[in-house]
Formats: sequence, C-alpha cells, structure tokens
Amino acid sequence: MKFNVFSRLDYIVQAAGTLVLNVHALNTFKQTIINEEFWLEPYVNYSSFQSLQGEKRLVKFGVTEYTPNLSAFYQATVDNCYEINDFSYITETQVSALDSAVLPYLNPSRYCESDKLYRMAHNMFGHISNPFQQVLTLTNWINKNVQYLSGSTNSQTSAFNTVTEQAGVCRDFAHLGIALCRALTIPARYFTGYAYQLYPADFHACFEAYLNGKWVLFDATGLVPLNGFVKIATGFDAADSAVANIFGDVMFNNMEVNCELAENYFEPFYYREDSFLGITYL
Amino acid sequence: MKFNVFSRLDYIVQAAGTLVLNVHALNTFKQTIINEEFWLEPYVNYSSFQSLQGEKRLVKFGVTEYTPNLSAFYQATVDNCYEINDFSYITETQVSALDSAVLPYLNPSRYCESDKLYRMAHNMFGHISNPFQQVLTLTNWINKNVQYLSGSTNSQTSAFNTVTEQAGVCRDFAHLGIALCRALTIPARYFTGYAYQLYPADFHACFEAYLNGKWVLFDATGLVPLNGFVKIATGFDAADSAVANIFGDVMFNNMEVNCELAENYFEPFYYREDSFLGITYL
Amino acid sequence: MKFNVFSRLDYIVQAAGTLVLNVHALNTFKQTIINEEFWLEPYVNYSSFQSLQGEKRLVKFGVTEYTPNLSAFYQATVDNCYEINDFSYITETQVSALDSAVLPYLNPSRYCESDKLYRMAHNMFGHISNPFQQVLTLTNWINKNVQYLSGSTNSQTSAFNTVTEQAGVCRDFAHLGIALCRALTIPARYFTGYAYQLYPADFHACFEAYLNGKWVLFDATGLVPLNGFVKIATGFDAADSAVANIFGDVMFNNMEVNCELAENYFEPFYYREDSFLGITYL
Amino acid sequence: MKFNVFSRLDYIVQAAGTLVLNVHALNTFKQTIINEEFWLEPYVNYSSFQSLQGEKRLVKFGVTEYTPNLSAFYQATVDNCYEINDFSYITETQVSALDSAVLPYLNPSRYCESDKLYRMAHNMFGHISNPFQQVLTLTNWINKNVQYLSGSTNSQTSAFNTVTEQAGVCRDFAHLGIALCRALTIPARYFTGYAYQLYPADFHACFEAYLNGKWVLFDATGLVPLNGFVKIATGFDAADSAVANIFGDVMFNNMEVNCELAENYFEPFYYREDSFLGITYL
Repeated sequence: MKFNVFSRLDYIVQAAGTLVLNVHALNTFKQTIINEEFWLEPYVNYSSFQSLQGEKRLVKFGVTEYTPNLSAFYQATVDNCYEINDFSYITETQVSALDSAVLPYLNPSRYCESDKLYRMAHNMFGHISNPFQQVLTLTNWINKNVQYLSGSTNSQTSAFNTVTEQAGVCRDFAHLGIALCRALTIPARYFTGYAYQLYPADFHACFEAYLNGKWVLFDATGLVPLNGFVKIATGFDAADSAVANIFGDVMFNNMEVNCELAENYFEPFYYREDSFLGITYL
Repeated sequence: MKFNVFSRLDYIVQAAGTLVLNVHALNTFKQTIINEEFWLEPYVNYSSFQSLQGEKRLVKFGVTEYTPNLSAFYQATVDNCYEINDFSYITETQVSALDSAVLPYLNPSRYCESDKLYRMAHNMFGHISNPFQQVLTLTNWINKNVQYLSGSTNSQTSAFNTVTEQAGVCRDFAHLGIALCRALTIPARYFTGYAYQLYPADFHACFEAYLNGKWVLFDATGLVPLNGFVKIATGFDAADSAVANIFGDVMFNNMEVNCELAENYFEPFYYREDSFLGITYL
Repeated sequence: MKFNVFSRLDYIVQAAGTLVLNVHALNTFKQTIINEEFWLEPYVNYSSFQSLQGEKRLVKFGVTEYTPNLSAFYQATVDNCYEINDFSYITETQVSALDSAVLPYLNPSRYCESDKLYRMAHNMFGHISNPFQQVLTLTNWINKNVQYLSGSTNSQTSAFNTVTEQAGVCRDFAHLGIALCRALTIPARYFTGYAYQLYPADFHACFEAYLNGKWVLFDATGLVPLNGFVKIATGFDAADSAVANIFGDVMFNNMEVNCELAENYFEPFYYREDSFLGITYL
Repeated sequence: MKFNVFSRLDYIVQAAGTLVLNVHALNTFKQTIINEEFWLEPYVNYSSFQSLQGEKRLVKFGVTEYTPNLSAFYQATVDNCYEINDFSYITETQVSALDSAVLPYLNPSRYCESDKLYRMAHNMFGHISNPFQQVLTLTNWINKNVQYLSGSTNSQTSAFNTVTEQAGVCRDFAHLGIALCRALTIPARYFTGYAYQLYPADFHACFEAYLNGKWVLFDATGLVPLNGFVKIATGFDAADSAVANIFGDVMFNNMEVNCELAENYFEPFYYREDSFLGITYL
C-alpha cells in the first residue's frame, strides 16, 4: 500500500551541536522506497548510515555556529508491506527455541523495566495460554486503563511509572506494552513510523511482539488503523529509536508530519477481541 | 598475558526452563583462546552462538525436567591482549565525528539512566577539559564515595539509585561510571570478565569509555589491577551482559570462579592521578 | 479481651547512640493496661513520653559506650477494646465534612505515595459506591495479588513499588492499602500492634480507614484474626510508627515477640466478602 | 517588621468539590496579625481551623455546583518577629537530648526521603563539626548545583530526584535541604510564607533546621532576604503544608500574590559564608 510521507523538524542551534535524525522510512526487503528526498535548510553537510542490524536509517550532522532556524525535511513515497496471519493455534515459544537475534528483546531496557513487572504481568495475564491473545489482552488493558493525555509525561517516564500512574502518550503506551510482554517472556520491541489517519498528524509509536516466529504489531493507543504505517525504525525502546538525538546547544522548536494515502482505496484493519488475526510488517 | 580461567555455576531446575550463559572468554582479533572446554553435568544438549556484533559468546540450553543439581563448567587458557596509550593530549570528540557503531553507547539503558544525570555530571565533572582525565576523575569520585558492600543492592538497582545511595557491588560501580560518561556525551559500555587477583574470586564488572577512538577500561572499585582481565563480554549494561539469564522455574544455587596467571611474571597496572596512561583491551 | 504481650529487642551498641522504641501498648480511653513493665539490660536510664496526639507511647534513651548486648524488654497484660459495626448503608464522606484532625491522613507520606496512585485506584476501585466495600475490595485485591515473601523488600520499599512489584511483608501490605485509600480520598493510617495467632510471632502492621466517622481496621495479609490485636501505635506510615528508630552506631541484633490470650475463650473475627461488618479499635 | 500581604487564588469548579486553603499568616506568640480579611467570591460558607500543633491556619469549604470563577482572597497586615543568634560555638545535639515534639522532624516524609540520602549527606557534609555551618554548607551546595527552572518539576518530584536531576523550584530546593538535614540527624521542616522582594511575586518555600534548640531558617534559592518573611505554615514537607489541597472536580486557574513593606526602612539580611549568624522566626 502506497503512502506519501513528509516531515519537517525545526531546531534552534545556539552554538555548536550534533543532530542524529531518524525520520527515513525503513528500506526492508519488502517495504519499498519509491522515491525519497532529505534536505537541510540552510544547507549543512550530513552523512547517512544504517544501524548495524538494519533497524533504522539515520542521518547525522554537526552544526558549528549559531543557526536560528535549521530545518530538516524528509519526503518520500513508500510502498509498505504487511501480512495478516491467523494466530489461533499458536502456543508459547520456549526461550530455548528462540533465534539468538531475538533474545535481546527479552531484556529490560531504559524505559521498559520488565524485571520489575514480572509478578504483576503474571497475575494479570499469566493465565492466558495463547500468546497472541495474551498480548492482545494486555494491549486492551493498557488502552482501557491508561489515559492518553498530552503533556502528562516527559522524556524520563518509563513503563514502571505508567503502569501505576496510568496517563501518557503513544510512546508511554508502547513502553508499557513492551515491558509487559518481556515480563511474560515474550520478546518485544519498539516500533516508530508514519501513521495514516493519525490526528493530529505526528510520528507514532507502538510495539511489536514476537509470536510464533513473526514480529506482530500492537498499538495500545487504538488511535489508528494497524495497516496504515510506514515503518521508520524498531528498537529496544525510545532510547534506541528516538526521532532525534540532539547533542550540544540545540533546541527543538517545531515540527510538521504528514502521511497521506497514495492509492485510491484503504480498508482499515483493527484487531477485534474475537479474532486471532495479527499483522506483521515485512 | 596468559591466564587459566575457570567457572562453575550450579542451578536447581524445579521444572522446565531455559538458561543462557555468558561465561566464555571472548575471542577477539587479539585475545586468543589457547584451549577451552564447556560442559554441563548432568549432560544436556546446548547450542553456542555469538552475539551479532561479536560482543559476547553465549550458550543456550533448555532443561525439561526436575534436575536438583545442574552444573555448568567452563575452563580455558586465554592469552589476553591490551595496549597502553597516552591520553595526555586528547580533546573532546564531537558526536558528529563518532563512528555510527559507537553512537548507541551514548543512549541511556536499563541500569544507566544517563538522561537523569546530565546536570549532576556537568556540575561535577564538566569543567575538566581532557576527556581521559574526566573519566578518571569520575571513576575516582565513585571509588571514594560509593561503599563496596555485598548485599546492599539487588538486580533492580540502577545508577540513578547508586549515585545517591552510595553503596553497591562491582556491577553498580560500573553502571554509575557508564551513566556519568554518557551524561557527559562520552560513549561507555559495560565490561565483564575474569579478573586476576580478585578476592574473593568472582566474575568482575567494570566499564569502558570511548576516548580518542579507543575503548579505554576503567574500574571504579579499584579492587584489581587493570591488566589482569580476561574479557567475557561488553554490552549496554548488565541487562545486556549478565553472566546468566534464567527463564522458567530455575534457581541459582552456587558458583565458583577462578583466574590464575599462566605465566611467571605479572606486573600490576593501575591508573595514577598524575598519569594519562590508559589501558585498552583488544 | 485480655492478652499477655511480650517483646525483647536486642541491640549491639558499637559506640554512642540513641534509641527510640515504640513497643508499649497504647493507653486509649478504652484499651486498658492492666499491668506492664519495661526495662533495659544492662540498666540504662530512659525517658518515656507520649506523642502529641496520643498515637503512640515512646521510650527514648542514649547509650554512651560500647554495649555488645543491650536488650529492651516489655511485658504487659492488656485489655483491648473494639466494636463491630455494620457499614452496609454508608455513603462517601465529603472532605468538607471531615474533622480537621483527620485531614492529614489524606496526604501522601514517605511510604504511601497516594498522589501517584490516583488513576489506578479509581480505575480499579472507583466504581464501588459503598466506601467500606471499596476498602474491603482493595484489601482483598492486595491479598490476592501481592505475595507475602520475607526478605523481598527493605526499609526503602514504598507503596509505589509494591503496587507493581507485588511482593512484600506486612508493612508493605499496609502501605499499599493506605496509599490506595488516600488515592480514593479515604483517610487512612498505619496501625502496629501485638497480634494473637501470628506465626511466627512478630510485631504486626495493618491499616485503618476512616469510614463514617470511625477508624476501621483492615489487614491485607489475612494472617491473623482481626479481633486479636493489642494496639501499639497509629501513624502516617512506618516512617512515623516504627517499632524502633536508631541513631548512631547501633545495630539491631535479635528480637522476640509474643502475644497470648489471657482469657479462656477467643472467637476469631475475619471479614467476609458478603458482609459489611467492620471492626474498630477504641 | 510590618508587611502588607495579599493573595488571590482562582479556581474553576466543574462539579462538587472541597478546597482546603493554607494562605493565612500564622498567629504565633510573636508574629502578630494587625488586621486580616479572608473572603470568597462568589460567597461560599467556609470554616477556619488551626492544625493541632499550631503549625498552620486552614480554611475549608465545599462547593456543590459548577462555579467557573471561584476566587479566594486574603489580605493582612502582619508584624513578623525574628531573632538573630550567633551559632559559632554550637555542637551537635544528641538525639537523646531532643525534645519529643521535635523528633518527628527526623523522619523521612513524602518528598524528603532522608533514609536514601544518608551516605551521600555524610560523604559530602559529615566532616563539618558545627551543625550551623553544616546546614549552611549544604544550603550553599544546593544553591550552587541545583538550577532554578520553572516547570522543570511537578507535584511528584522529591528530594531523591532533585539531588541528582539538579533542577527545580523553591519547593524542590526546600525538600532537598530538609532531606539532607534529616540524613545528618538534624531535625528539619518545611516553611512557607509570603516573601518580601520575591520577583515574580509568589508564595515562597524554604526550610528550618533545628539547631541548638531553635528552628533556624535557611533558603537554598537565595532569592530573597531572610528577614522579609511572613510565616504561613511549617510542616513535614509540601504534602503537609501545601497552599491548597483540592478534592473533587476543581481546577486551579490563576493566582496573584503580593508582599509589601508596611514600614519605611528594611535592611536585608542574608547569610554569609564567614558568619555564624542565623535567623529564627518566632
């Protein structure tokens, strides 16, 4: 499914600094970049690179002098690719059978202290035998109990806070989903992307759980259809997958994000409580 | 320099479970495994693998039934390899000049919440212009202020706790060193190994800071000479580099670790406050 | 109902220090001290005092030299006094109608961060209209979900930890009950006492909620009958009502506690899910 | 010294709620209320009361219906009273010699987790033998290291956060001062008041340490002269001494505070590093 995506990030560079941006659509073996353009205004020389395991495409550049209005633009037409599978009959995957590349996604991380949520996760969701249903149930629990409230959290808020404080934004919803999965010994990772039909338009964050050999997407916010994403990156959590990392005397100022359908027809796909159909981005 | 290293880890397997062990000496382009042996008693089939970027060598195996005394043995003769460089004249490396493989070691992680230590690190160590001296000074600060106290912390303790609570074990000392470095925009990572002259013998943890293009070793505990290590692994923090990850109904019971010199002569190397010589394991 | 209570606390005084002990049965207008004795071995001069609002009776003394085995003994025969009331038809008490002496028990305290549990408490228990049932339900939820596990927590553990980590001892169960009540705008306080039929014998902690003008006792541990207490103290939380506060170079060594029935007959009273009978100590 | 003080607090009452306000100047045996007036617009019936130990004067009232603009006004002319004493020759007060009414101010509280700061406080300030100098030194350390930054903290921020995160507002500066004092076994309490020469005008918070039998005022923010306060309240921390506690569906909207000299002459008094003169409000 084709989408036109766009983002503009504005910064005020007070003095020297480095920016590492993570706004490029990912180029996977199935998600196709039909065309794309990235540029900086005013012009700054930058370097592009892909993370070692291909989970993100980054742009890095230094700014050496006062620049009151530095803007980074990205626009692309992307053909995403997903598959929908039936997880009705899956059973728990033993850790000993997991691929070694997946094992690190069982570890706790900065914003996902799964080690502290072990008992809670088992008390609440341990009785569910089908792992897809387990993740869907915990996703619905987050959706029902955590209030989506802009400004209620900050860059230090973690899953351990959110599980009790029960307010946050998409990043917090994702962190809590990841932490609960890992506490249940289900590998899970952070997913950021452009999201169709997200209002107000913004980058979006959700998470993937590793079920029956596939990374299945879940979004505890319920804000968008699950088949309208253009994947930007996956990672351990937002520490690993932030849209921007800023070093030095640079301040974020403003941004604009957009994601539009580049086809005629879109049939939204959501999970349903009575279904075991899960979506995987390829 | 050659060492004979040995470890034995004992577990009580109540029911089914998986263990992932990280006790093998690392096989780098310079650290040489002269011979090694790993075995399980009673016999269990296991698989070995290296992490994707070569930071650790893991053994993974499932146990399917009650096993009251499962022991994992490792013994090896290893020729470690380090170099000592003079960091007298280095200056701060701009983030824009850092290799992309090093960038992730600037991010906060589960046990190293560098994002929360930014102001403190700058207030305490921001005035020091030579980055080697900066890390050495913060390492000495940890050594002087944090009390080495077995049992004072647990598997949930993080650098944010230790910076104020000021008690812990080698793992906590390492986490705090890493977090302070990252807060100062110096890439840093966790280092575990066998350590010569550590009493009582145990696995040891310390940290590496990325200075002038090299990973330089620092040990805030001051317990052992810096040139007596056999490297096992590096990682973001202990979540990423634990000696063992246990899944299922398995309990740690006991352990034995040993590291002996396999040569005739050892001249201990420590940092000195008036010197800029730093050690790098290759 | 009459009980013989006894406690012995042993300390190692390394150098000078002060101890403040809170082991005396409270002398309320209904709980009667038939006889009591407190003494220190070796002899040390001490002073007794009651807290300003009568919630506890304290003993304070300084030790000025090395004393390897200092023991504080207390024994008493106490006639406790409680009433059992029916809370079937009560409704929420408006804060504006609360007595001013009760208002402070709505505030968060060291171990009861009710301000952080507001949304969670309302999501879980906000729909229950009868306040007695609300507190009983949350008490039962704690009992069902928090594992009683000696050594799982320490003197820094608070309700915000326990609500997610879901393990602890009686003190942690009490703190969580208090925090959830306060988050629901129900005044709540810590209660310590000697407890009949507690095995192994120890001081016990539970909590009181202020319902319909009475302080009603709840015990989330479910370990003892609710009518077998001899009240020692009430307070904001354990910071305020510890059995002992130690200052200086003094270490706790050992203790013995006992509570025996001094009558012939005892009919245990517990709450039941289908009943609205609540117990108040006078 | 006479001051005219004024405050106006505006609330939006969505539905029913209760407000407890703490804006009255305290009526101590020396601080004299020459005249005062408190009123609500629109008119609501309220009750006034003093806390049990006289640390604050509160106003409590319920609102039963939607009130888009409820304002609470207070104005008074107050003659404050302080004394300045020389603490050059004081020594540490043994806990055993402390008055029992002062002992609770050694306990940790919601925002002042002194139990977690024990080692840090001793490492940093334990070597100073004169307790006045000890508190002055820690106050200066806070002033130098914690950045005064509006909006950097929220109502959940505690001393344990601030000691490392090193940003906050007056309330956070006070909490950290209190926590460090208590960790050093110096009783300390929260102090709120109207403050002369505070720009922008606001309620102000600082803290008192109990030294040589007197409650001595310290202000780590350094924003105002120490002799320009009209005391409103003291307490364990902000949980205990908030300007307002709101229950129900009520939102803070706006406020105005003022404190003007009602005499001709004011000589500002500040602490100096080379002086042992301390100020006590009576």
